Amino acid sequence: MTIEVGVIGTGMIGQDHVRRLTHVLSGVRVAAVTDVDLDRARSVADSAGDGVAVHETGAALIADPAVDAVVVTSWGPTHEEYVLAAIAAGKQVFCEKPLATTREACDRIVDAEVATGRRLVSVGFMRRYDAQYRAMKAVVTGGEIGAPLLMHAAHRNPSVPDHYTSDMIINDSTVHDIDVARWMFDEEVAGVTVLKPRRSSKAREGFDDPLLVLLEMTSGVLVDVEASVNAGYAYDIRGEVVCEDGTVALSEAAGAIVKRSGGFGGRVPQDWRERFVRAFDTEFQAWIDALAAGGTTGPSAWDGYAATVTCETGLAALRSGAREPVVLREKPDLYK
Amino acid sequence: MTIEVGVIGTGMIGQDHVRRLTHVLSGVRVAAVTDVDLDRARSVADSAGDGVAVHETGAALIADPAVDAVVVTSWGPTHEEYVLAAIAAGKQVFCEKPLATTREACDRIVDAEVATGRRLVSVGFMRRYDAQYRAMKAVVTGGEIGAPLLMHAAHRNPSVPDHYTSDMIINDSTVHDIDVARWMFDEEVAGVTVLKPRRSSKAREGFDDPLLVLLEMTSGVLVDVEASVNAGYAYDIRGEVVCEDGTVALSEAAGAIVKRSGGFGGRVPQDWRERFVRAFDTEFQAWIDALAAGGTTGPSAWDGYAATVTCETGLAALRSGAREPVVLREKPDLYK
Amino acid sequence: MTIEVGVIGTGMIGQDHVRRLTHVLSGVRVAAVTDVDLDRARSVADSAGDGVAVHETGAALIADPAVDAVVVTSWGPTHEEYVLAAIAAGKQVFCEKPLATTREACDRIVDAEVATGRRLVSVGFMRRYDAQYRAMKAVVTGGEIGAPLLMHAAHRNPSVPDHYTSDMIINDSTVHDIDVARWMFDEEVAGVTVLKPRRSSKAREGFDDPLLVLLEMTSGVLVDVEASVNAGYAYDIRGEVVCEDGTVALSEAAGAIVKRSGGFGGRVPQDWRERFVRAFDTEFQAWIDALAAGGTTGPSAWDGYAATVTCETGLAALRSGAREPVVLREKPDLYK
Amino acid sequence: MTIEVGVIGTGMIGQDHVRRLTHVLSGVRVAAVTDVDLDRARSVADSAGDGVAVHETGAALIADPAVDAVVVTSWGPTHEEYVLAAIAAGKQVFCEKPLATTREACDRIVDAEVATGRRLVSVGFMRRYDAQYRAMKAVVTGGEIGAPLLMHAAHRNPSVPDHYTSDMIINDSTVHDIDVARWMFDEEVAGVTVLKPRRSSKAREGFDDPLLVLLEMTSGVLVDVEASVNAGYAYDIRGEVVCEDGTVALSEAAGAIVKRSGGFGGRVPQDWRERFVRAFDTEFQAWIDALAAGGTTGPSAWDGYAATVTCETGLAALRSGAREPVVLREKPDLYK
Repeated sequence: MTIEVGVIGTGMIGQDHVRRLTHVLSGVRVAAVTDVDLDRARSVADSAGDGVAVHETGAALIADPAVDAVVVTSWGPTHEEYVLAAIAAGKQVFCEKPLATTREACDRIVDAEVATGRRLVSVGFMRRYDAQYRAMKAVVTGGEIGAPLLMHAAHRNPSVPDHYTSDMIINDSTVHDIDVARWMFDEEVAGVTVLKPRRSSKAREGFDDPLLVLLEMTSGVLVDVEASVNAGYAYDIRGEVVCEDGTVALSEAAGAIVKRSGGFGGRVPQDWRERFVRAFDTEFQAWIDALAAGGTTGPSAWDGYAATVTCETGLAALRSGAREPVVLREKPDLYK
Repeated sequence: MTIEVGVIGTGMIGQDHVRRLTHVLSGVRVAAVTDVDLDRARSVADSAGDGVAVHETGAALIADPAVDAVVVTSWGPTHEEYVLAAIAAGKQVFCEKPLATTREACDRIVDAEVATGRRLVSVGFMRRYDAQYRAMKAVVTGGEIGAPLLMHAAHRNPSVPDHYTSDMIINDSTVHDIDVARWMFDEEVAGVTVLKPRRSSKAREGFDDPLLVLLEMTSGVLVDVEASVNAGYAYDIRGEVVCEDGTVALSEAAGAIVKRSGGFGGRVPQDWRERFVRAFDTEFQAWIDALAAGGTTGPSAWDGYAATVTCETGLAALRSGAREPVVLREKPDLYK
Repeated sequence: MTIEVGVIGTGMIGQDHVRRLTHVLSGVRVAAVTDVDLDRARSVADSAGDGVAVHETGAALIADPAVDAVVVTSWGPTHEEYVLAAIAAGKQVFCEKPLATTREACDRIVDAEVATGRRLVSVGFMRRYDAQYRAMKAVVTGGEIGAPLLMHAAHRNPSVPDHYTSDMIINDSTVHDIDVARWMFDEEVAGVTVLKPRRSSKAREGFDDPLLVLLEMTSGVLVDVEASVNAGYAYDIRGEVVCEDGTVALSEAAGAIVKRSGGFGGRVPQDWRERFVRAFDTEFQAWIDALAAGGTTGPSAWDGYAATVTCETGLAALRSGAREPVVLREKPDLYK
Repeated sequence: MTIEVGVIGTGMIGQDHVRRLTHVLSGVRVAAVTDVDLDRARSVADSAGDGVAVHETGAALIADPAVDAVVVTSWGPTHEEYVLAAIAAGKQVFCEKPLATTREACDRIVDAEVATGRRLVSVGFMRRYDAQYRAMKAVVTGGEIGAPLLMHAAHRNPSVPDHYTSDMIINDSTVHDIDVARWMFDEEVAGVTVLKPRRSSKAREGFDDPLLVLLEMTSGVLVDVEASVNAGYAYDIRGEVVCEDGTVALSEAAGAIVKRSGGFGGRVPQDWRERFVRAFDTEFQAWIDALAAGGTTGPSAWDGYAATVTCETGLAALRSGAREPVVLREKPDLYK
């Protein structure tokens, strides 16, 4: 059985997912694509082999009976429309983060999905599928080092485009750390504080970078996230969970250790693709396999909702300089 | 385009490859299987979905027009027959190591392939597709640490079945290190010496384990391989290439570092599947992609021939206690 | 030339220093000791060889013409008296941290030393002499990775005596991290915030452990210190300085890497002696060598003053839950 | 009590030991020095403080009643004379390796010491005092990973002076690995084989470098030592002992881990001083403490004898290309 997928949004990440769905994964093919730039959509369709339809709109793609399931990789503010349309069409949808860009939009998606009585939405928090994070979570939940107390994390991008802002450090980078914290400890973020360390001279004027984001979980576990987007040297994702009887940390992911010129050393990934290419593969294959089995899997609309609300709270904390509480709606039974 | 593959041999590794071809890789499906145990073949066919034919013999499978390409994962002594039949049928064939169990059998395969004028045979030396070994080779061939002088390697199996013998340490374990050495330095092994360190008390009576296998390459590069098959603690594959200006080594492949009870530590793989699962995936996907593009890729029949001859020389060295020269036929142009 | 040292306080750390001065270091001997427990003092004197005088009071020891220099390792609240007496006697004095337990006491010591016009006081912040911290500082000040922005630190004690309190986490543990931050970045702490993560179940009732102490340096560099005193698994001191172009971190200090039972691992130090034994040796030898050369070296009375004031501010922050500013007197020229 | 030491030989290593005895260690002073170059001896005496006698000959230094014990750091061929003289004088003597340069000379020293009925000679194999090697030996002898089977070692010098020869790789470099093997496994070397890998282009014409030296211990444990003296990148000493249930290896001795420019890395020592400075300190302090207690400690004249004989056997193996047996005299009771 082959799942026929329609992809909305053929920008950088959309193209990467089309490649993945076409050339890497099993049991799936791309049946249709669309994009705000139709020429780009056509070019991507060509790259995916014969018989890939190009639709003029996301709505048309979702309505296409040849499309079994939808992948949304368009610009964030358009996510709500496409996810709601997929739900309305009763089709499974995989939406890249964010689920939607506002609390209200996420609310509407949660309401719509709850109204159908079944899970149709999966959100692209790929770190949950990274082998190292999974090994870390296995240790934490295995209980061998006791109850968790703190987590130290760092999210370092080598550089960002000129249009990047401090808000985007929260919304586009730290959102992954927020999801990791929620998933790692199986609980919500209760409060957020954002501190501004010394500003990097490599950050644009008026741009606070790095940030130290403090996430207080409902149990009291405290997560500190260094978020840097002008780190220069590499794309470096670090994490250590401190428990009552020990700690567990992500290791360096070096493939080979070279000794020369007085030292030893290994490589640190250069971008998010290199670091998480396998996690993306695993994430999508798991989704496809779940679809083939008649269901879905992965982070839910609730996870997308909670991440967006926590990011909004983080932005408020960035502005206020104070701890801001995260206020979530009651969790629908569908997600329990 | 989907490559339709027939699999001859549905034992442990055959089952793993059927799973891989069916559930993991892109652009391929299993069209037919066979096995000396037809009940097992039928059971594996069922696990691979609908429409998988079960043939009574390898010959029938190879002759099946629905089979585009053949995977040989049967018992070593049967490889020659199936590979020759695939060549005769003009079909691409992927043969798990060994290509064949004797120099003469490999000779016949090389002759048959050369007679067709094109490459049809690929041999399963999966380490060439392992990310760490590839990173290591990239450093060696990149020249940044100068010309290679030595390689230190270790091949440690936690344990082996009761029927395992010292000969199998050479033929089944060290064969991979022999292929790595030939591939890493792009040259042949010129001589082999096998030393017997202190015998492990965990080895059966009359069984020499561990061995220290010394491979002298044609350039003079010396490769020492510790081959242990009762190492107990893990499946541990180590390697370091020493060059004139530095060295490059495989790193530990730890997913998470745990601190507890006075120490820090990480995991070492427990078996060859865990260690090389990704290499197998990459190897097969590369082969399938090459088939889809009209050719083949990967270690050739010549590589299979040279590995078998070098192993035979290793066995002679194990018996003689002396350095034994590796004598190879002239390399046909097809493999240059 | 041999420096004749008098040691005030022969408890655990005093005994360790007497051993060091007697059996490890060069150019020094213990000439006299005293302690609130004179029997203990006599016993320690005996262990240090012949001719070690036992004085009934610290004042008598300081006044002893055979004593060239004084080491103060008595109970913290008594430090002020002995340091002031040594200054009054014009004798060099090495005082274990804290210099004194209150801002006012430190003020008086600074005033007294400034009045003499020369440095007589050295304070025992031994981390400045640890090879790893020194390597880290060399990288930071070498400029090869740019200006510092943040520092992440952890100070984990395996366990503490029953009388330990949250205040002592600041005064006895974090004081070292405060000194490291001041030394590493060559600037003062401007503000302190103390956060309370989830409480360890291994901490006594009413005892907040771990703490996350945030030190804001005058330049804006932000230092986060996880201070845990029931960490259980080891005495683990971690540090990473994040700069504009890279980072530098303390490495694991493993002496041997063992592989067994499916994993690899190394040792983490079990207590502060194991971790810093060499730093103590180096620190004292440097002090003795400086004395032999007619001066002194090491952290000054000003460093002791600033550490105590910053700790007091940390205690205020622990109580208030808010950021508390560190208010220091003007720095006398003697320390510039 | 202060041990008064006379130092014969004030070249590079002699100077380093004079510095150590004068400025680093406890309970010792340099009372006298001599050297074939008396000007150099005088200059070194001055550097060691007041009251250091300069003798015209080693014999005069040994005869000096102010000299309690003798340190021999002169040119290897002169060792025998000075060690024998010290024994004749009934004085403890610490001799840098080699004990003597020929089997016969070592024989005479052993005979002379045995005739006195007590141990007077200590030989400078400092690796036995290195913290990492000691941790490794503790694991091996602790039995937690079972009986030893193999040891892999590498001894890499960044470069050597122009007068260096292949013989010196055995005599000056590998001699340390020979002593380590004897000490680690508490048994003798039974046979030596020397293999010549591809020659480094950085080695002088006619100079075989690197070498692979195989030491077969009496129990059958096999030790392979890569000895390279033009390794370029660092002074790198590696070791891994493979036992029946696990392995133990020296860790990298990095003081700080730096991340920049796409990678992480640490320092490898640049020369033997950096790598073993602490081992030298520990070795000498142990010797001085043993002298103060009325005895001696450390590698014995027998260890020096066995090392020299094994090196001679290694040279024979280098010339013959074959395994050469190590033939030792019977071990006198004094050394059992």
